[in-house]
Amino acid sequence: ATNQKGPERAFLNAIDSIIKVHGKLPVNLLIVAEGEEELGSPNFPQVIDAYEARLKQGHGVFFPLNAQDAGGGAALPLGVKGILVAEFEAAGGAHGGPKNAEIHSSLKAIVDAPAWRLTHALASLTSPDGNTILVPGYYDAIRQPTEAEQRLVNGIASTPAQDEGMRRGLGVDRFIGDATGRDLSAQLLFTTTININGMWSGYTGEGMKTILPHVARARIDSRLVPNQTPDEQLALIRAHLDARGFSDVKVRKISGYGPAQTQPDAPLVTASISVFNKHDVTPSVMPRLAGSAPYYIFTDRLGLPMVMGGIGHGSGAHAPNEYMVIDPKPGSRIAGLADVEKFYVDFLYAFAAMK
Amino acid sequence: ATNQKGPERAFLNAIDSIIKVHGKLPVNLLIVAEGEEELGSPNFPQVIDAYEARLKQGHGVFFPLNAQDAGGGAALPLGVKGILVAEFEAAGGAHGGPKNAEIHSSLKAIVDAPAWRLTHALASLTSPDGNTILVPGYYDAIRQPTEAEQRLVNGIASTPAQDEGMRRGLGVDRFIGDATGRDLSAQLLFTTTININGMWSGYTGEGMKTILPHVARARIDSRLVPNQTPDEQLALIRAHLDARGFSDVKVRKISGYGPAQTQPDAPLVTASISVFNKHDVTPSVMPRLAGSAPYYIFTDRLGLPMVMGGIGHGSGAHAPNEYMVIDPKPGSRIAGLADVEKFYVDFLYAFAAMK
Repeated sequence: ATNQKGPERAFLNAIDSIIKVHGKLPVNLLIVAEGEEELGSPNFPQVIDAYEARLKQGHGVFFPLNAQDAGGGAALPLGVKGILVAEFEAAGGAHGGPKNAEIHSSLKAIVDAPAWRLTHALASLTSPDGNTILVPGYYDAIRQPTEAEQRLVNGIASTPAQDEGMRRGLGVDRFIGDATGRDLSAQLLFTTTININGMWSGYTGEGMKTILPHVARARIDSRLVPNQTPDEQLALIRAHLDARGFSDVKVRKISGYGPAQTQPDAPLVTASISVFNKHDVTPSVMPRLAGSAPYYIFTDRLGLPMVMGGIGHGSGAHAPNEYMVIDPKPGSRIAGLADVEKFYVDFLYAFAAMK
Repeated sequence: ATNQKGPERAFLNAIDSIIKVHGKLPVNLLIVAEGEEELGSPNFPQVIDAYEARLKQGHGVFFPLNAQDAGGGAALPLGVKGILVAEFEAAGGAHGGPKNAEIHSSLKAIVDAPAWRLTHALASLTSPDGNTILVPGYYDAIRQPTEAEQRLVNGIASTPAQDEGMRRGLGVDRFIGDATGRDLSAQLLFTTTININGMWSGYTGEGMKTILPHVARARIDSRLVPNQTPDEQLALIRAHLDARGFSDVKVRKISGYGPAQTQPDAPLVTASISVFNKHDVTPSVMPRLAGSAPYYIFTDRLGLPMVMGGIGHGSGAHAPNEYMVIDPKPGSRIAGLADVEKFYVDFLYAFAAMK
């Protein structure tokens, strides 16, 4: 449905229509498709390896997306955050703690506990509220927002009603620092994070089991903004843990790639906005999404500008009831499938004119 | 098998034999049996309620136990530690964080994380190595070992080979502080602990899932020595968390009871040692076990001395291959079932003579 077969099919329909009517496309097009983004796109770099020379000859990258929200507003994001996913493991061994299996918890009096080591190693990463990263240098690589990026965020500042709707939608009573409006957008899009997405040790069932677990694990993800890179951030975490006496706590990289950024004044962006305007939609141009995708391959490795966008609406990504609107109700500001396809046709011609 | 039907059956056999031969027992006996110790004995106090007046008329409490190790040595423990089991929970709500369900981890930039709150609340309880409790007052109630208790521990000091055997058996490379011998025994028997027996939050399966979990939980157990009580220790933890700004982290008591202690010079202890000696076994009299059982009901509530003991050997408690030796190999120093029964007979007569 919306993420991602719907927009893909609509884009292919647009291409098909142009070829059927005109015999050929107005642009040279190389379609890159992969289905492993949710797994961290482990094989994507080698696909690009095989076509790098040809891809580099391009003038830009377009990612078809149902960018309209339920009210008909649309976003045009110019980038994504990068990501580092890593697993922490504390286990028994030379430094202390049971190596092979859990032991009776009365032995805590004489045996070190991996679960405590993990807890303290994790806690050393942030302030007590979990919101300020205390790893030395973790923020150093960050390029401050450009004036143009800051202007874009000022432009997408939300109303109190929109903020409240967002809180309700997420099921949260407050945002960090009670941020609202442009402060909220800036915090979301311009900052790096370290988040615990899972942690586990010992007995986790009902009731109680008084054991001293031999291993404790946690997985964190860190969302990266320009110019952070996953390997440099991971090295900072490792150095910090070693400096704080946590050399016994292992950190293993699971996935990682850098952020992707297209400049707001790129001709591709201007061309995209003109197509939105032609379809009577004024897009909120955003410096980036807070989410991550391996688009650094296009922007950094191939050096190409990239936009994600298009009209149309869908929701429920990854959920059983994921959908894309094909035939909107009469009077709706949401575009139906036929208009989405026309948008893509217009986009390809606007892109051709841009060259 | 060894924990606990074997010794129980042997004790009942001893009683049966005395009655068959002599017509009556040399002592008045009230047998207290329950099968919920591993669940924290939730219904035990009310059983005692019903018989409290009669139980208080007793002169002592005996717990039949296969106290011989594989080499034939035997222990005579004079008490047990108490225990507090509590569950910590950090969840989204008024202080921040998602309330209803996990959310996309990119939102960590603007949403507080319960998993971080739990991590920091737990970490605040101990030193970074997990071995020194930093909750103010947590050690204050502890009665220091008496001279008699200290002498007992000096007497059970282990050899380097025994320490190495214990490390190997537990699968640990070192004990806290590289303790050995009497220091190790003193550390094990005289100190309180806080141990994480389980912790969990978010996605804990294979691969990765970049979510911001709405709840994080951990269960701790604290082994209590005289004169700590579970409710006072729990109140100290709550006060500490509140003082450190973790009032949003809930702590719920799951189970708890105080320690039990019988004085080494109690007549019941002297009588017990004499029965061991009659059976050519010299018991290591220990101030207590490092483990926990609700024996405070006998020692504190009823004010009775209590010993755990007996000859005989078994192992594998709670495991599928749990056993009790019935017929030892010829030449073994381990007592077989018939001798175990005779020990209990002798014990009852020694107890009768003691009065």
